[in-house]
Amino acid sequence: MKLTFPDRLTAACRARGNAVCVGLDPRWEQLPLELRRRHSAGTLDAMAGAFAEFCLRVLDIVAPLVPVVKPQSAFFEACGPAGMSALQTVLRRARTLDLLTILDSKRNDIASTAQAYADAVFGKQAVWPADAMTINPYLGRDAVEPFLASARQAQGGVFVLVRTSNKGASQFQNLDCAAKPLYEHVAEAVGAWAGENIGSGGLGDVGAVVGATHPAELARVRELLPHVIFLIPGYGVQGGSARDTAAGFRPDGTGAIVNSSRGITASFAPEEKNWEASVEAATRNTIAALTTQTPMGNLV
Amino acid sequence: MKLTFPDRLTAACRARGNAVCVGLDPRWEQLPLELRRRHSAGTLDAMAGAFAEFCLRVLDIVAPLVPVVKPQSAFFEACGPAGMSALQTVLRRARTLDLLTILDSKRNDIASTAQAYADAVFGKQAVWPADAMTINPYLGRDAVEPFLASARQAQGGVFVLVRTSNKGASQFQNLDCAAKPLYEHVAEAVGAWAGENIGSGGLGDVGAVVGATHPAELARVRELLPHVIFLIPGYGVQGGSARDTAAGFRPDGTGAIVNSSRGITASFAPEEKNWEASVEAATRNTIAALTTQTPMGNLV
Repeated sequence: MKLTFPDRLTAACRARGNAVCVGLDPRWEQLPLELRRRHSAGTLDAMAGAFAEFCLRVLDIVAPLVPVVKPQSAFFEACGPAGMSALQTVLRRARTLDLLTILDSKRNDIASTAQAYADAVFGKQAVWPADAMTINPYLGRDAVEPFLASARQAQGGVFVLVRTSNKGASQFQNLDCAAKPLYEHVAEAVGAWAGENIGSGGLGDVGAVVGATHPAELARVRELLPHVIFLIPGYGVQGGSARDTAAGFRPDGTGAIVNSSRGITASFAPEEKNWEASVEAATRNTIAALTTQTPMGNLV
Repeated sequence: MKLTFPDRLTAACRARGNAVCVGLDPRWEQLPLELRRRHSAGTLDAMAGAFAEFCLRVLDIVAPLVPVVKPQSAFFEACGPAGMSALQTVLRRARTLDLLTILDSKRNDIASTAQAYADAVFGKQAVWPADAMTINPYLGRDAVEPFLASARQAQGGVFVLVRTSNKGASQFQNLDCAAKPLYEHVAEAVGAWAGENIGSGGLGDVGAVVGATHPAELARVRELLPHVIFLIPGYGVQGGSARDTAAGFRPDGTGAIVNSSRGITASFAPEEKNWEASVEAATRNTIAALTTQTPMGNLV
């Protein structure tokens, strides 16, 4: 019997001794030159081939080190159908390497359409198979439910955008709604959804995306939602420090994963020949910074 | 010189004498049996082939009748890379038939990622080329701006979710935020964005998605945003009547388009042999209902 998503995630974090998520956001201009030269036809198919090769090499490097990876759908989609094939390849390979996967696609729609998005990730004929995906809550409960139901059938998880890491996020997310900011209302809904299916470790299968760039709010949401897993973006290039992420964890180091994308996969200059060593060093440095400065260190 | 998106949309509505948008949401179980039989391999590639064939036949039928079509990305995505190729084929064919296209994908992400989503629709190497796309506003201003900037470079448009048509939409969208519901805050932001680039017909290039299922709120948003184009879902199968959509229009019949998906493309029983006649009749009936019961009739 497959464990719940939160239990699998916690087990993977304990096995690796950290809760770092490597974001796979391939951008042509950041790829190693040696790799670009071998995919230099100038077509989107060639670019997709480069993205796949780059991501597969990164997966090999990070698989022994971290529990989870997060491909960003947008960059694959921008390459067209070949890019979507590359995304499929990357997701499938991650599984064979015993990595958990979060598809970052922030999907949302009314229920009958949301079902199609959810099936594509969690269904029997899943085309972008992942252990979890990100979704956007703006449409409300009935639009979120198909994602939850599909995820549950596959023992998967869903991460709902609560307080995003970007500068303009406060425009709507921090509007004062009935004496508290909008994101707290969303957080409460996430808490209720997560409470419907709690694993043996006390964490639910519905998580929250809460940016490291707003540490006080991260602490507030942690307080509100002791049983919810946080996916924390915004660490590193976006401005959040290791210490800024600390408030996102439960005291035992569970309950949060911290994503790093460009800080790992664009940690080298394109002309650097030994870029794979740079990716490995950046991953190890990220793990070291986070395990020493946050409760993540208690996982081991 | 290409006209602005709102001017092209208004011209297309006047030329066809209506503002009906045909939604393309292909679902296997609703396809004509004769077509399913010819794509019966049971694979996702076969399903994608059936979706493409069905949508292309619908495009041929509706192109002389309506100004705009709206493919729903989710159903194509669920078929994997072959589905994305089908989406590409459908979008490209619509253009050759002089139909405007709105890609309904409700994308959203932080700015650097939003740029990739926007490039995929509006960029020089657009893989899902459309005249406009739908986006979700939850991440706020800086996450919306790449979509606006890319759309403007292509003389395209963006439709922002404001008040969606689903039953659970009120959970967040109607929260009372500083004395007015959240969706009004979003509507005001849309109004400001639309005001940045107004075409000769007095309409901006940023539209609002406002469901027909909430007619009082549709009227309220029309009042707030005289210069904004509304994309109105929720007519027909979802429960909105023709009269419910009336308040979305400007008095001269411009400023709104009403979408019908299943009411047109699933207007027949799968075993019906003459399904194409049914699609045509449903399109004509939709046009008749809306032009007689809303200001849309003033377009001619």
